[in-house]
Amino acid sequence: MFSDQRLAELNQPLLAEHQTQFQYTAESPRLRHADVAAVVQKLIDFQVAIPSWALGTGGTRFGRFAAGGEPATLEDKIGDVGILQALNRSSNSISLHIPWDIPQDIPGLQQLLKEKGLVIDSVNSNTFQDQKDQPQSYKFGSLSHTDKAVREQAIQHNIDCVRYGKQLDAKTLTVWLADGSNFPGQSHLRRAFLRTQESLAAIYEAMPSDWTMLVEYKPYEPNFYSMVIPDWGTSLALCQALGQQAQVLVDLGHHLPNTNIEQIVGRLRQFGRLGGFHFNGSMYGDDDLTTGSIKPFQLFLIFNELVDAALDQSVPAEAVAYMIDASHNVKDPLEDLLQSVENILSAYAKALLVDREALAEAQEANDVVRAEEILRDAFLTDVRPLVSEAYLRAGGAIRPLAAFRAEGAREKLIQQRGKHSVSTGL
Amino acid sequence: MFSDQRLAELNQPLLAEHQTQFQYTAESPRLRHADVAAVVQKLIDFQVAIPSWALGTGGTRFGRFAAGGEPATLEDKIGDVGILQALNRSSNSISLHIPWDIPQDIPGLQQLLKEKGLVIDSVNSNTFQDQKDQPQSYKFGSLSHTDKAVREQAIQHNIDCVRYGKQLDAKTLTVWLADGSNFPGQSHLRRAFLRTQESLAAIYEAMPSDWTMLVEYKPYEPNFYSMVIPDWGTSLALCQALGQQAQVLVDLGHHLPNTNIEQIVGRLRQFGRLGGFHFNGSMYGDDDLTTGSIKPFQLFLIFNELVDAALDQSVPAEAVAYMIDASHNVKDPLEDLLQSVENILSAYAKALLVDREALAEAQEANDVVRAEEILRDAFLTDVRPLVSEAYLRAGGAIRPLAAFRAEGAREKLIQQRGKHSVSTGL
Amino acid sequence: MFSDQRLAELNQPLLAEHQTQFQYTAESPRLRHADVAAVVQKLIDFQVAIPSWALGTGGTRFGRFAAGGEPATLEDKIGDVGILQALNRSSNSISLHIPWDIPQDIPGLQQLLKEKGLVIDSVNSNTFQDQKDQPQSYKFGSLSHTDKAVREQAIQHNIDCVRYGKQLDAKTLTVWLADGSNFPGQSHLRRAFLRTQESLAAIYEAMPSDWTMLVEYKPYEPNFYSMVIPDWGTSLALCQALGQQAQVLVDLGHHLPNTNIEQIVGRLRQFGRLGGFHFNGSMYGDDDLTTGSIKPFQLFLIFNELVDAALDQSVPAEAVAYMIDASHNVKDPLEDLLQSVENILSAYAKALLVDREALAEAQEANDVVRAEEILRDAFLTDVRPLVSEAYLRAGGAIRPLAAFRAEGAREKLIQQRGKHSVSTGL
Amino acid sequence: MFSDQRLAELNQPLLAEHQTQFQYTAESPRLRHADVAAVVQKLIDFQVAIPSWALGTGGTRFGRFAAGGEPATLEDKIGDVGILQALNRSSNSISLHIPWDIPQDIPGLQQLLKEKGLVIDSVNSNTFQDQKDQPQSYKFGSLSHTDKAVREQAIQHNIDCVRYGKQLDAKTLTVWLADGSNFPGQSHLRRAFLRTQESLAAIYEAMPSDWTMLVEYKPYEPNFYSMVIPDWGTSLALCQALGQQAQVLVDLGHHLPNTNIEQIVGRLRQFGRLGGFHFNGSMYGDDDLTTGSIKPFQLFLIFNELVDAALDQSVPAEAVAYMIDASHNVKDPLEDLLQSVENILSAYAKALLVDREALAEAQEANDVVRAEEILRDAFLTDVRPLVSEAYLRAGGAIRPLAAFRAEGAREKLIQQRGKHSVSTGL
Repeated sequence: MFSDQRLAELNQPLLAEHQTQFQYTAESPRLRHADVAAVVQKLIDFQVAIPSWALGTGGTRFGRFAAGGEPATLEDKIGDVGILQALNRSSNSISLHIPWDIPQDIPGLQQLLKEKGLVIDSVNSNTFQDQKDQPQSYKFGSLSHTDKAVREQAIQHNIDCVRYGKQLDAKTLTVWLADGSNFPGQSHLRRAFLRTQESLAAIYEAMPSDWTMLVEYKPYEPNFYSMVIPDWGTSLALCQALGQQAQVLVDLGHHLPNTNIEQIVGRLRQFGRLGGFHFNGSMYGDDDLTTGSIKPFQLFLIFNELVDAALDQSVPAEAVAYMIDASHNVKDPLEDLLQSVENILSAYAKALLVDREALAEAQEANDVVRAEEILRDAFLTDVRPLVSEAYLRAGGAIRPLAAFRAEGAREKLIQQRGKHSVSTGL
Repeated sequence: MFSDQRLAELNQPLLAEHQTQFQYTAESPRLRHADVAAVVQKLIDFQVAIPSWALGTGGTRFGRFAAGGEPATLEDKIGDVGILQALNRSSNSISLHIPWDIPQDIPGLQQLLKEKGLVIDSVNSNTFQDQKDQPQSYKFGSLSHTDKAVREQAIQHNIDCVRYGKQLDAKTLTVWLADGSNFPGQSHLRRAFLRTQESLAAIYEAMPSDWTMLVEYKPYEPNFYSMVIPDWGTSLALCQALGQQAQVLVDLGHHLPNTNIEQIVGRLRQFGRLGGFHFNGSMYGDDDLTTGSIKPFQLFLIFNELVDAALDQSVPAEAVAYMIDASHNVKDPLEDLLQSVENILSAYAKALLVDREALAEAQEANDVVRAEEILRDAFLTDVRPLVSEAYLRAGGAIRPLAAFRAEGAREKLIQQRGKHSVSTGL
Repeated sequence: MFSDQRLAELNQPLLAEHQTQFQYTAESPRLRHADVAAVVQKLIDFQVAIPSWALGTGGTRFGRFAAGGEPATLEDKIGDVGILQALNRSSNSISLHIPWDIPQDIPGLQQLLKEKGLVIDSVNSNTFQDQKDQPQSYKFGSLSHTDKAVREQAIQHNIDCVRYGKQLDAKTLTVWLADGSNFPGQSHLRRAFLRTQESLAAIYEAMPSDWTMLVEYKPYEPNFYSMVIPDWGTSLALCQALGQQAQVLVDLGHHLPNTNIEQIVGRLRQFGRLGGFHFNGSMYGDDDLTTGSIKPFQLFLIFNELVDAALDQSVPAEAVAYMIDASHNVKDPLEDLLQSVENILSAYAKALLVDREALAEAQEANDVVRAEEILRDAFLTDVRPLVSEAYLRAGGAIRPLAAFRAEGAREKLIQQRGKHSVSTGL
Repeated sequence: MFSDQRLAELNQPLLAEHQTQFQYTAESPRLRHADVAAVVQKLIDFQVAIPSWALGTGGTRFGRFAAGGEPATLEDKIGDVGILQALNRSSNSISLHIPWDIPQDIPGLQQLLKEKGLVIDSVNSNTFQDQKDQPQSYKFGSLSHTDKAVREQAIQHNIDCVRYGKQLDAKTLTVWLADGSNFPGQSHLRRAFLRTQESLAAIYEAMPSDWTMLVEYKPYEPNFYSMVIPDWGTSLALCQALGQQAQVLVDLGHHLPNTNIEQIVGRLRQFGRLGGFHFNGSMYGDDDLTTGSIKPFQLFLIFNELVDAALDQSVPAEAVAYMIDASHNVKDPLEDLLQSVENILSAYAKALLVDREALAEAQEANDVVRAEEILRDAFLTDVRPLVSEAYLRAGGAIRPLAAFRAEGAREKLIQQRGKHSVSTGL
């Protein structure tokens, strides 16, 4: 939908204003410590994966209000991510969810991905729902289940996920485990942990040596008394037991109230165990809102830790997989994803603008006010011109969301797919 | 399933042990301040309504694992509540949910209710989901919607609920409003409130003069930035604006972390505005677990406020409607409801055993330790014999849960209804 | 310390850069809907009161690490606020705390206030601590105490506060009540409320007719089981019982985790009962950090409600008293206050820049993404040039904090007052 | 004050009633799976340490309301613990706090401890406050401070604590670190962690080989943005880096809202890293109330994990140090401690009564209702007769609190020490 020529047309009326704003920002005396050109280049290089399961309307247990034109096939989903990537050039990869998106026509998919400039970066297993005709039920757990037959089915499913992923050159398996209990006494807490560790080890063993296993944590939901992997400490302990290919995945919505997430991020980088992110936004729990929509300062502080660690020679170098994992209940999913990527890029841009030398000095001297002001200076900077410049230089739209709307993209998708197409997912 | 004769048979082997335990408890020197016979009578008189929507398996947005033998019709649901009532004699009424349980054959239903010794106590409206072929969508709200046509549809639905309820002699309309917003800016917070107030007034006007409207509050879910009625203060403000037939409904799971719910309960009784309860249990949010399963002391403290207010002449007398509102995700729904009623009766029994005269003295003297010990003495008392005695004297089972299992009740229901019958509800 | 001439000297080197930035911002096409000159004027007009008790170093129950040069007398405190006001021209009033700052030499104080361009805006009572030689103890409460003698002492103290305030032309009494209980059973929750209501009524009766009583709420600390006035609903109920001169005071740190404070603010404005604010910042509880330091977006959303209500003819007009109430544990108190005022002005400026007409349209149409983007556009705008312009036009410093440091203000205060002067307060 | 003879006199009037209750409980058919005599013996053997700093009145940052007769010297404090131990025979040890309780007359103290049947079990360091004439300030941290001189002072203080402890045969050093930051930017989060790890290693190296270092965690307070050791994951990581003598200490009040603490306890036991507890009660944060006063079910569930792990051969055997760490703001400290010990013993007794064989079966079968009921059966049992029996057999009072009051113990202490003696501590 968004050819280079069409993008150029859509950019044209915004170009002059953008250039003024970018120039003003780039030359701002407040940013004299920063290499703005390098910042823009880093923004261009940054890529965040789009989950195949978040291209349709999401919902809650109280209901779901579908929008139209949802992608019903994996091919359609790749098409949707292709639209995003054409617009922002920052979402060149897809996280698959199995069994919702089992690839069938491998050569066809490979061709399609290539056309759109996309890759499959990771595969997510699902042992929190029963699929039709599945022999064993996950009602009382999967990798932690008391019954060996259930555990084996869940292990095999994860191994299958790796197999599907290999067909499309993915290198990452993400394991989110919903296992836990709703009532005190229901589950033997220590044994459930040990069974989980054993099951994960079996999957880990079956994984190719160039793959990474990401172990996600979550304090509650869908279980409301205990979760087998409730916090980063448990994820880390499991990863340590598994081996160097096992890494912790941080989902921003998976924390108890008031958690200082940025410090956890810094710790995990320090330990060489931060494998990836699921970005979303939350005010109460796992609300799965647009990332940055509720706590933009927190998102900035998280990127501040990431940028700081990346610059620090003493921190183990590691590839952090960035993914979005949100639920689009009241917004157009593609618009929501465009916002999400922009919020992420903005937080990253601000983190890149921090005057780290001055900050380190102020921190060493315990000059609290000055240290805080240095950090805030970066946060208060209006980085929209830098993000737009990155879009533009990479070949995308100056304002992706505006272009999406100007093009009537959703209306076109509805025309193609119908008002009532339904996407798999939650 | 549980005839008087069958119950007598089921009680027989438990009788001697029960009598020993009851006698020991009734004669305990620790309870010399209490009139144990009167306590048992109050337990016999206490009734808590069963919601028609909680007789099937519940779930979360991540899935639902159905058990078998679920009641698929309103008649079946009445049958299920009849089982509970036969066993515990404390759940003689049903809360209907419209449109899930629109009554059709009124005379037949009346006859069935009479047979089972049941009544319909309240009707719950549903404007948080779209029903098939519904002209207007509630995606962006109902009574608070910006579009008058949507508001009118939602108002009419509530008026219809009253009409259905009148056919079965209900006297209470419960309004839980899911309206709110997911993002800052999405909704104009003050105008949404004013529109809601106006819509509620229209429903209130249409309600018969002997009906009560219960206005429920909830801080979040399914909306995750704002809810139009997030807290008791808002519910109360709306009730004050509506009139004396409007009352606040407290759902135990609808509070922010660490809320002192018992104090809210006491306040609302003080103001003459506590209309009813939705009992359930929670550790994190609106977890909808078995009431009393996570915080049994809190449940006791809530009943302590209720009992204390009921004894206080200066507090406005009012009928409080007790209902259960839980989601049975991993338990047999009927077993869960038997547990719930028992936990409620236990908390009530303990509250009735508090030595209020001594407590008042200690409180007046600020003898903190003594006041606390008096309250704890009641909580620490093993009241299971008193609750069993109440069951027994009222004609039920000494241990309802044990009787349900001994009878193989669920297996019989599965035989009758099949493994795959599905109940309406969440 | 900061004469007009000295301020001009301090501003001189910053002037050119400031003018460039201001001009760029004022002419930004993104702000074409806004009247930037009017916004700057509103910033100039905005005033936030400084509490007399927050000019010294604060602490926690674990200790206090005093800085030097603290103001030991009320005259010194007025001097400190005079410094702030000279620099930012936005803090022209003082909230007094009795008994920490009982005025003695009234004519002298009046003269001093006049010289500094300051007024006393409110008086805060203290019944949460025992003063030396006080006949009755507040250990178990004050206005809610079971003992009438204690309540009368607390009532009289509040009446005395009004008397002190009248001497210095204050018009507001702020009542923060620490009363509550630490253990279930300790306090009779309903009676404690009724006694409080009665005590407040006695104070209210004794208050001049042109005074306002602000009733603050707080969910916990220093009591950890119940607080007599834990939430806005309770404050509002008390104010309704007292009369139109009673208003609710919102302290940003006095809420349970995850509370949507901006909606409370909007509600109270709607009800005509928002009397004032205590600004501070928090991540966990009543942390009393610099306002805006942890949740800058929330502070903006609060001002968004205030600005919106002020523009709405249907909302009762009312004067909202803005005060800072923070604890400066690790920062120089005056620097912290300069930051606080700047954060408040920034949030206000952003709220003033919201394109309300476009926002209302998007909200009416339930265009969630567009409504959110309109609001975020204002938040993302770098308003530092507007705030600096307001400082400058009002006669202050372009960058108050930088001027404070450039002048060596704290060092001078230490020279004057000594390293070990101690301010009254927490 | 409580000689054996005096205790016998105090027990006499309660004896008959106690015996009836104990016999009834011991013979209860509900406990037929349990060895009640063995349970009583385990209660007799259980000992929980009393902190020297909690024998005086506690307070909050808003004030402190002293009771009379507080112990002003270490000798007096040993006297107070002697009273507790005489009454309940379950608190035979003392946790010292340095520098509040630096031992002077070692032989005299040893003699006194021996007389009272007490030992010193642990020493707690204090680097969260500045002591008079201390060269370096802890305002900006201690073991994590940016300045090496401060770190060295804090390290030396901890080494001194070990030295003091050795003089009195203690074997445990408890390190609670208040280090952290109040504002984003103030502290470099990763470097603060690394400096802390280095400092702890220096202390660890200096510690005798038969000592244990307990590393406590806390999410906030006195710092309100970040704490260097905020959670069990961080404590564990530090302990792993230090060595096998380093263990995690769990303080019940040091968790974010809604944390499942019992699962953490089980995990740490599994990992062989649960070194000890600080018992207290909380509703909101680190409220430091009487343990078990707010969440008695949680306390039971914690002991359930402890008992279960102790019975499990596959779990590393380890000595868990039980200590109370509460703040007695409105209660008599000794009465509060008697309540605390009793609540702990009660929770332990209930955990010992769990029918673990049946529970394991139900858990294996995922019979949720049955598993829950088995656990609840133990919780609902009135174990007061068992606890009293343990007191009695061990030589203490049937009801320690009643005996303390009957004896007029506090009045006697006030007579001895005066109304205004002040204990060191918070």
